[in-house]
Amino acid sequence: MADTKDLEARIKALEQKVAMTEDIEAIKRLKHKYFRCLDSKLWDELAECFTEDATTSYTDGKYSFRGVEAIIGFLKKSLGPDTVVSMHQGHQPEIDITSEKTAKGIWTSEAGLIITDRNVSTREVNFYYDEYVKIGGQWKIKHTGYRRLFDEAWDRGETKSLRLIANMFAPRKD
Amino acid sequence: MADTKDLEARIKALEQKVAMTEDIEAIKRLKHKYFRCLDSKLWDELAECFTEDATTSYTDGKYSFRGVEAIIGFLKKSLGPDTVVSMHQGHQPEIDITSEKTAKGIWTSEAGLIITDRNVSTREVNFYYDEYVKIGGQWKIKHTGYRRLFDEAWDRGETKSLRLIANMFAPRKD
Amino acid sequence: MADTKDLEARIKALEQKVAMTEDIEAIKRLKHKYFRCLDSKLWDELAECFTEDATTSYTDGKYSFRGVEAIIGFLKKSLGPDTVVSMHQGHQPEIDITSEKTAKGIWTSEAGLIITDRNVSTREVNFYYDEYVKIGGQWKIKHTGYRRLFDEAWDRGETKSLRLIANMFAPRKD
Repeated sequence: MADTKDLEARIKALEQKVAMTEDIEAIKRLKHKYFRCLDSKLWDELAECFTEDATTSYTDGKYSFRGVEAIIGFLKKSLGPDTVVSMHQGHQPEIDITSEKTAKGIWTSEAGLIITDRNVSTREVNFYYDEYVKIGGQWKIKHTGYRRLFDEAWDRGETKSLRLIANMFAPRKD
Repeated sequence: MADTKDLEARIKALEQKVAMTEDIEAIKRLKHKYFRCLDSKLWDELAECFTEDATTSYTDGKYSFRGVEAIIGFLKKSLGPDTVVSMHQGHQPEIDITSEKTAKGIWTSEAGLIITDRNVSTREVNFYYDEYVKIGGQWKIKHTGYRRLFDEAWDRGETKSLRLIANMFAPRKD
Repeated sequence: MADTKDLEARIKALEQKVAMTEDIEAIKRLKHKYFRCLDSKLWDELAECFTEDATTSYTDGKYSFRGVEAIIGFLKKSLGPDTVVSMHQGHQPEIDITSEKTAKGIWTSEAGLIITDRNVSTREVNFYYDEYVKIGGQWKIKHTGYRRLFDEAWDRGETKSLRLIANMFAPRKD
């Protein structure tokens, strides 16, 4: 016959493992929301992803900001115009839950811009090094930054046949 | 000494959380199978991913179908020929289990075609909005559709050096 | 009043499910580390991902190796030079835990090289078929290999405007 004290210890161990699994999924989802809102130009939803005092070191530290307002201000200025179609996709998460309310994550990404008024395309692959904290039951980005694997740009006009068929931010013709 | 009624409540809470985690993984895997079968032209396996009465609104609703037969018919016609090499990769799932047998999911994708007989390439990035249901213990796609972030096409012949080295659907030379 | 024997059976079922979820996450993470270390040219960390007697069948079996030393030797020779910027991103895992210590996985990938001294780019999409084993509590790659969906290459010099802005392995100018 199983002892209830022993059963309780096993339940407690399970509760800790399940909480860790849920935290890892919540952090992946936070990052997925971050990239989706970034490319959808949903600035208010994007701001929800960060802590108030969040910091960034984008582009090997070239774009370092402190505070969610400064970060959103920078992103909105860089990626906000309808002439900038941005794609940012995060892959290959390696998430470490470091305590009940803190975590670290490494990701790789593939990203690129189509800048329609200058007819330029860019493409880059980066490694992100993030820190997360849990505030009021919600995981938030406390720090995000990336090292570039590579970054390239070219003039779309060189490929005469290249047509942009659809673009979510194109002026509507109706 | 722990009370067995209390322990049972904790076990029940764990069972619900574990079921949700398993459902999320099963839905991710369903979508992964969908994209793999699509690009591998495995139409029977692809059909297994859908409910009988599934609906689509591909390409901002331009390609809307009802019923698995109509959907597979469309996909087979569009992507079936050996002259169409298709790549569809789904990323960044945000899955919500909305009840024991229903769920919603948002994904982003990167996709592209190489149409070998016309020597054309396409590339597009989309946001998917899916609905899933669990039937007989298996998650299925009840609705899938996407809004395009962008979509572009070009003539591969413009890049004189471009060589297609391997292609799973190329005619075999033996 | 719940019977402790019944509670223990439910706890045991949960322990098995939770272990499976943890194993799936650990295997995903193993593959993510593999790709990150490959592109970062971290050969010692990369070697940790394999069993001693691991085998490969890269490129439809063209590059088949036995033993971690032979595998790392091949990867280092192919991708090691600073003139090779490699990107390998793994997507869409379908992981099957086949026993307590064995598993299988299917992945798709997008990969490409920028070979700076020859000014060549390549791009390929593959389906991986992997086998994993758990040794001393750690999941390792026992076999990895892929079938190519397609593989293409072109001369970067054809696009006169194309500039490689950043590259992690470029000679430092300081």
